Amino acid sequence: MQQKQMNRLSELLLKYNHNQENEPLAKHLQEDDLKKILEVEKIEGNQNWDETFDWIEKYLSHSPNTANLDFSNRMWSKATLPSILAEIVTATNHSDASTYESAPVATIMEKYMIGEMLRLVGYLDGEGQMTTGSSNANMLAMMCARNLFLEGVKASGLYGQKKLKAFVNEDAHYSLDKAMNILGLGLDNLIKIPSDKDGRMDIALLEKSIQETIENGDIVFFVTATSGTTVRGAFDSIKQILNLRDKYNFWLHVDGAWGGPAFLSKSLRLKFLDHLEDTDSFTFDFHKMPGIALICNMLLINKRRGIFKSTCSAGTTNYIFHGGTKEVLPKNLGEFSLQCGRRIDSLKLFLDWKFFGAKGISDKIENYLELAKYAEKIILDSSNLELVVKRESFNLCFRFITPDTIDSNEFNQNLRNNLLNKSIFMVGTGVVDKQLIIRYVITNPDTTKKDIDLFFKKFECEGLKMLQKLL
Amino acid sequence: MQQKQMNRLSELLLKYNHNQENEPLAKHLQEDDLKKILEVEKIEGNQNWDETFDWIEKYLSHSPNTANLDFSNRMWSKATLPSILAEIVTATNHSDASTYESAPVATIMEKYMIGEMLRLVGYLDGEGQMTTGSSNANMLAMMCARNLFLEGVKASGLYGQKKLKAFVNEDAHYSLDKAMNILGLGLDNLIKIPSDKDGRMDIALLEKSIQETIENGDIVFFVTATSGTTVRGAFDSIKQILNLRDKYNFWLHVDGAWGGPAFLSKSLRLKFLDHLEDTDSFTFDFHKMPGIALICNMLLINKRRGIFKSTCSAGTTNYIFHGGTKEVLPKNLGEFSLQCGRRIDSLKLFLDWKFFGAKGISDKIENYLELAKYAEKIILDSSNLELVVKRESFNLCFRFITPDTIDSNEFNQNLRNNLLNKSIFMVGTGVVDKQLIIRYVITNPDTTKKDIDLFFKKFECEGLKMLQKLL
Repeated sequence: MQQKQMNRLSELLLKYNHNQENEPLAKHLQEDDLKKILEVEKIEGNQNWDETFDWIEKYLSHSPNTANLDFSNRMWSKATLPSILAEIVTATNHSDASTYESAPVATIMEKYMIGEMLRLVGYLDGEGQMTTGSSNANMLAMMCARNLFLEGVKASGLYGQKKLKAFVNEDAHYSLDKAMNILGLGLDNLIKIPSDKDGRMDIALLEKSIQETIENGDIVFFVTATSGTTVRGAFDSIKQILNLRDKYNFWLHVDGAWGGPAFLSKSLRLKFLDHLEDTDSFTFDFHKMPGIALICNMLLINKRRGIFKSTCSAGTTNYIFHGGTKEVLPKNLGEFSLQCGRRIDSLKLFLDWKFFGAKGISDKIENYLELAKYAEKIILDSSNLELVVKRESFNLCFRFITPDTIDSNEFNQNLRNNLLNKSIFMVGTGVVDKQLIIRYVITNPDTTKKDIDLFFKKFECEGLKMLQKLL
Repeated sequence: MQQKQMNRLSELLLKYNHNQENEPLAKHLQEDDLKKILEVEKIEGNQNWDETFDWIEKYLSHSPNTANLDFSNRMWSKATLPSILAEIVTATNHSDASTYESAPVATIMEKYMIGEMLRLVGYLDGEGQMTTGSSNANMLAMMCARNLFLEGVKASGLYGQKKLKAFVNEDAHYSLDKAMNILGLGLDNLIKIPSDKDGRMDIALLEKSIQETIENGDIVFFVTATSGTTVRGAFDSIKQILNLRDKYNFWLHVDGAWGGPAFLSKSLRLKFLDHLEDTDSFTFDFHKMPGIALICNMLLINKRRGIFKSTCSAGTTNYIFHGGTKEVLPKNLGEFSLQCGRRIDSLKLFLDWKFFGAKGISDKIENYLELAKYAEKIILDSSNLELVVKRESFNLCFRFITPDTIDSNEFNQNLRNNLLNKSIFMVGTGVVDKQLIIRYVITNPDTTKKDIDLFFKKFECEGLKMLQKLL
């Protein structure tokens, strides 16, 4: 029976995979309409394979085809084939990555990949771990810094401790707010530094804010440099923040969830991540620009070997970690982690890395930058479109130009929603200086200049149609 | 090319699936030996499919066959087929569950399953979410309680707040220690209540400890009832702790990672989880006893609708959550969560639930209990084995009896390791009252009484061999 179902799924997936590139995006439906089609209320417990496969077919046909070139809704899209194969293999083998005994191959591959990344980033005596995503990685880096700056906090908690202040670009990802909340540090103690005209943290204002904090008797413990802000794609100046770190002695974390993988390209590293090797921690997602299947994140920490274990370990674990050694990379990766059972993310990372290598990934990212430049030119050349802010790297923040009589924010939101509701194109939005913008990013390696032309054609065409109706 | 690789993988997996039941556990190798076989240092970037498939074959042949009946190393083993198929489908479709737009089917399925579980548990006006595991769920429940008990903590942090004290069974899972550390509450403020002879929190000691805390001017905010302690499998008395809650007004959380799914069986619910519907929060893993593919966890909260959003939300999220509504279950599940990108765990839960239903899952769990009773009898009847503590539910804590001249802890650890190193059987260990025990739990639905006979035969045989050498 097992073989029969696997055969049936294989057939179905092969058909789906074959069509994936050619088929349009799934038709976008409102929740209530889709619910009716799915028939989720059907009675359970029939052990009926036909029903199972019916749902699988519905799942595949009503979930957006993220490999389609018309999907640009998030910061990831098509996954690489080695990583998809790896996900299928790990699901079939079924183990978790917390102990060497249960997952020996995955453990060796994860340690190997962490070692490779530490070496390439240039973190000496560092350590790393794969987390459940960048939100988790940002929180964990902040937690390591919190426990380093406040002696005794692990045992006694934050009661009676000095106040810690963290600093981020006002455009930083919301997971840094969440981290302050989770860790008991309080949202008000996250200082958001205004950005300059290029979307980077204003260094003079950062220093001023740091000085005020010290004057107040609080502790400056954590500054996050965002490498690729979510909306604008700006890269905070690592070099300038490092100068401040040497003066004020905080932990400099680099949130490279989006733009971090650019370090794999020599030229882009110099341009965007210069002096990365001198920072204190660095996180980046392999599942965004590099295109590895979701979720695939790594958090690296410079120097300070052993900090994960000293920060994270707690409680009695002898039922699970049998015979751990005192090495820096322990026998069981779970000993490093805030999780107990851990998904196996290392096989997909390892297979993808071996297949494409640093060169393959950096070629891809360099190409994305070229395409972003090409898209920028189209916007600048169009009489219907405006670039709302300067392109800093990979992100294009633009919108359809409207006459003064029309609310531009509302118009562009509707334009974007119409494209989605008509299943023409899925593209994200964002807000810059209270202006709603279309955030266009390319993360599909199959995208060509022709596809970009096509996107803007569709966008302008829909915009003009809407405008005609309104005028 | 894509189709070709998918075909190749399908063939390989079908062969593997076919053999899975018949093949022995993978040969257990030490890290250095396995490293040599894996050749992880091979140069990358060749874009060579043969190498990729070579590693996939190595992965499959050197990772323990967790579906094999000789794998009883963790609290999960063989995954159900509907859930494995679902994992393969979600990997192929490639999306994440944070927004309705990117994952409409997964979002509807997750909301549906949360609703079903709330209804079955009996949580009125409650809400739920799927997390990255029980460690994460325990932390999130505690965070909700922390932010509820301390007004202003989200904004201002724990500085100047009253001290919160949490209470757990001394045998509770280490993730509760971790949660105190993460949340800034301090490990010392987790009070570990000694257990009675049955492994349950001693209620008189719990009350005494609560009273002392109040006398000290600290706040009693969180008591965790463990439903199925990790090593002994004891279930704290929910009913008795509820009496204390009514008196002292704390948050009563139930950590049912291991034994929680027993609520799906009428008789087992009455026996182990009576009055569950009156508690404040409840978490349980579908990937342990129910056998859904890793990771599959749910955290439910009673009453207090909206608490996830008020506890978790922070920062600017308008770039991702377009047009969220003010419903209790928002359009985008990410708005509830501490994660940004979220894996899709709902398809596997949904398909498995529809296939087996509450009845299918509870039959399985009731059968595990029968098998545990059967195994208990074998231990009691054997002159070579001793039950170190009374069986409370699904866990068997036993060991090989050794003469006084031999260190029993060391002997049993070696016995267990020998079984592993000879790839005969993978079974876990634990520590009870400083005594090392073999922790035997059954989570493979194919296990029969005959297989249990066989396990103990192998265990006794290896033990006797070792004893002969020593005497």
